[in-house]
Amino acid sequence: MQKELDFYLQHRKKLIAMHYVNFVIGWDMQTDAAENSILANSEQAAVISEMSYNLTTDPEYERSVGVLFKHRDELDEVLRHEIEVVYKDIQDTKKIPLDEYMAYSELTSQAYPIYVRAKNENNFELFRPYLEKIVEFCRKQTVWLQTSKVKGYDVLLDMYEPHYNQKKYDQFFKVLRKKLVPFVKRKTKKPVKVPKWATQTFEKEKQREFCEYIRDVMCFDKSRGIMKESEHPFTSGFGTDDVRITTHYYEDHLEYAIFSAIHEGGHATYEQQCDKSLNGTFSGGGASLGLHESQSRFYENIIGRSRAFWEVHYPKLQEIFAPKLNKVSLDQFVKYINRAEASFVRTEADELTYPLHIMLRYEIEQKVIAGELEVKDLPKYWNEKFTEYFGITPPTDTLGVLQDVHWAYGNFGYFPTYALGSAIAAQLYHHMNKDFDVEESLKEGTTKKINEWLRERVHKYGASKYPDEILRLATGEDFNPNYYVDYLIKKYSKK
Amino acid sequence: MQKELDFYLQHRKKLIAMHYVNFVIGWDMQTDAAENSILANSEQAAVISEMSYNLTTDPEYERSVGVLFKHRDELDEVLRHEIEVVYKDIQDTKKIPLDEYMAYSELTSQAYPIYVRAKNENNFELFRPYLEKIVEFCRKQTVWLQTSKVKGYDVLLDMYEPHYNQKKYDQFFKVLRKKLVPFVKRKTKKPVKVPKWATQTFEKEKQREFCEYIRDVMCFDKSRGIMKESEHPFTSGFGTDDVRITTHYYEDHLEYAIFSAIHEGGHATYEQQCDKSLNGTFSGGGASLGLHESQSRFYENIIGRSRAFWEVHYPKLQEIFAPKLNKVSLDQFVKYINRAEASFVRTEADELTYPLHIMLRYEIEQKVIAGELEVKDLPKYWNEKFTEYFGITPPTDTLGVLQDVHWAYGNFGYFPTYALGSAIAAQLYHHMNKDFDVEESLKEGTTKKINEWLRERVHKYGASKYPDEILRLATGEDFNPNYYVDYLIKKYSKK
Repeated sequence: MQKELDFYLQHRKKLIAMHYVNFVIGWDMQTDAAENSILANSEQAAVISEMSYNLTTDPEYERSVGVLFKHRDELDEVLRHEIEVVYKDIQDTKKIPLDEYMAYSELTSQAYPIYVRAKNENNFELFRPYLEKIVEFCRKQTVWLQTSKVKGYDVLLDMYEPHYNQKKYDQFFKVLRKKLVPFVKRKTKKPVKVPKWATQTFEKEKQREFCEYIRDVMCFDKSRGIMKESEHPFTSGFGTDDVRITTHYYEDHLEYAIFSAIHEGGHATYEQQCDKSLNGTFSGGGASLGLHESQSRFYENIIGRSRAFWEVHYPKLQEIFAPKLNKVSLDQFVKYINRAEASFVRTEADELTYPLHIMLRYEIEQKVIAGELEVKDLPKYWNEKFTEYFGITPPTDTLGVLQDVHWAYGNFGYFPTYALGSAIAAQLYHHMNKDFDVEESLKEGTTKKINEWLRERVHKYGASKYPDEILRLATGEDFNPNYYVDYLIKKYSKK
Repeated sequence: MQKELDFYLQHRKKLIAMHYVNFVIGWDMQTDAAENSILANSEQAAVISEMSYNLTTDPEYERSVGVLFKHRDELDEVLRHEIEVVYKDIQDTKKIPLDEYMAYSELTSQAYPIYVRAKNENNFELFRPYLEKIVEFCRKQTVWLQTSKVKGYDVLLDMYEPHYNQKKYDQFFKVLRKKLVPFVKRKTKKPVKVPKWATQTFEKEKQREFCEYIRDVMCFDKSRGIMKESEHPFTSGFGTDDVRITTHYYEDHLEYAIFSAIHEGGHATYEQQCDKSLNGTFSGGGASLGLHESQSRFYENIIGRSRAFWEVHYPKLQEIFAPKLNKVSLDQFVKYINRAEASFVRTEADELTYPLHIMLRYEIEQKVIAGELEVKDLPKYWNEKFTEYFGITPPTDTLGVLQDVHWAYGNFGYFPTYALGSAIAAQLYHHMNKDFDVEESLKEGTTKKINEWLRERVHKYGASKYPDEILRLATGEDFNPNYYVDYLIKKYSKK
């Protein structure tokens, strides 16, 4: 067995190096590489994915993992969990034919720049053939990877959030639909009037300065990561020592960069605070997308949109943009950043209407994967469904079905984790407040105390346990969406 | 043989993909990655280099290359050249022990950020232990790779410029030393007084705007590459469809960014103008460092510092920086950008004194590789030698031995190609002028005609021939340094 373990650890190094390769190439494609360069190099993406595939399905590796899996009770806890995950991963990868795997990798690498162009040009037809092929693959994937317990869309859901399926999500969304939807409808009946101060021009350089300040407030370790601009804000991490976040500055939209910086800063804090001993293993990084999103949404909304946070940091914002915000009171500012209204774009949606955007996508994906809705009908269906939920109709596909990058990457099954994350955030907040007064702690000027609580309860585990297990350890209970609904209704009833 | 060829072409795809991986990772390290991230990920660099090593020394691959090498006369010209180069490369790689190869890759990946810090902090001691190990490896390399014909420093020189050795470089530098050095001494006797207008603040944003304009003048295809900032300007390319250049803006030093943009633009033009059929082969990209540098220096100095160039583009510069350059005449500007004086930093040296900087490094490297000079004695030796050549002594190591990044990458043998490139540029210029009036062509507003001449004579071949062969095809003669000396003396005698 020691021999198998040695082989495993040796072979893992190669797989981890391939993770690093994919991390850097992904970062490059999303931030630097020119459109035609990506298209021209999509063949490389295919060859690289072939190498990864071959490393993952290497017979000697599979044998060693098989032996370790059989003797997993003799392994330490972290390695035992890893072997369980890896064992399943190998079985799953083997079920996907290599030629399909490579072609799909080439396809998604080509689809990204096409998607960006289609979105910019409001041209769904440009993206349609790519999306059709992606959907075709995802549908096949559900067949290849199905088991006696997990079938159809559940196969994809489980990939992004282990142990979650349509049954659980349906229950979750049922609670939201019952308690939250009527409340949201009441609260967003009147359109919000944008105050004049918010329509000023906020210089990019000054926005960047404030975002860098925010990064320090959140204790982001700059020696182990960077902040950069990209079209769509995101976080990308390789271990605890290379954590990268991006934002996007709109000069006519001050809050966009600020809240995306806090959001991505939340993801980054999770990555930077994993236990260092997990670096170089498959147990580093976040435990799941849902748990990851719980961290970003926790910092962005629960902390970042709180009055307590801005009591401390609003003067800095005023100072940087002086005199533009001199006459805007703290209350006016806090009220503005917490307004609720029906809007087209998920990433710019307010905290209250956000989960409706996710429900929309969840229901659409269910139909698409089940073969009940075809790609060509997506724009029309999106707009109809959107109108039903929000009472407004997207004027363009750019503001409708083309707004999110996820499907261009083939990430069907991903969206629901966003709503799950928001709900987990509220659950964590409830329990954090039992240990210390969270809003009071912000007076120290940083989120240090909050970071520490989350590190001990959530972050340090990395992906060494399943997300539902970590939630139980952190809060002493299973996932409970009522904290979320209660939090939202309480917060938005005040106003 | 067809079977071997098929295998070769299939295996080459993997090696090319690894080139792509190294291209992207190298770009990332030099532009984005944080210092501690690079250090933390140096283990990945080692594993990736192991993969490359294993792919290069794969027995089946070696066998197929061996068969193709034996039957190379049956191959088309491009593939024949490639097989010759690859055959030698495999033999060379095999001579380096894998553990040394991996350790060295890890070492140089760690050395880069340390070097940057050492340079910024003027702390040679910080960098010394890394450089010592690098030198140790390079010395060993000369032993591993030596043949009956190529020994010592020649082994390294040949790696960067095939068919060049100390004998040839010594001859070249002898011409420079005899004809140019006394001329330079005369011309740089009086210190140059920097005019007041040149000491103004030139806003970064406006410099960027002008550099983007220059990129268009040079017909850089933006859909197949990008321009970005980095500490040290450089060009990096993967095939014709992903060509990236960087520059660095100093607000108190207008010309730095402009001429580095033109310089890197020259490299980029070479890469973008290779024959597209060479993409995905080992015959893409430039034929050698010397030939590459001949292109960058051609555009930077012969074109970019000519009066004819600025007759067309100076008004744009004045417009962008208005009113700062309104009272500076074209003649004043051209005179300023062609001033010659002794200075500390190679990358900022004028066209006339530049080759002396290279001679200095060449002589130092000869001694270091021969074991006649140790790393610990480098700063002192550098300063003594520098004083002898230039009559001024570097006040810091930052402005002395630490100024160049090359040794941090282990690039001993690289520097001489810079001087060679300058000389080749003059030789090409001489012959180009026989075909058309080069300065006259600039009146069209772009370098299109020049680009086309160079594409047909030099660029299109990529690395499908040896550089000396391409030079012969382009000019009808062997390398001749007299064009360079004549060009410089003629240009600098005018003033």
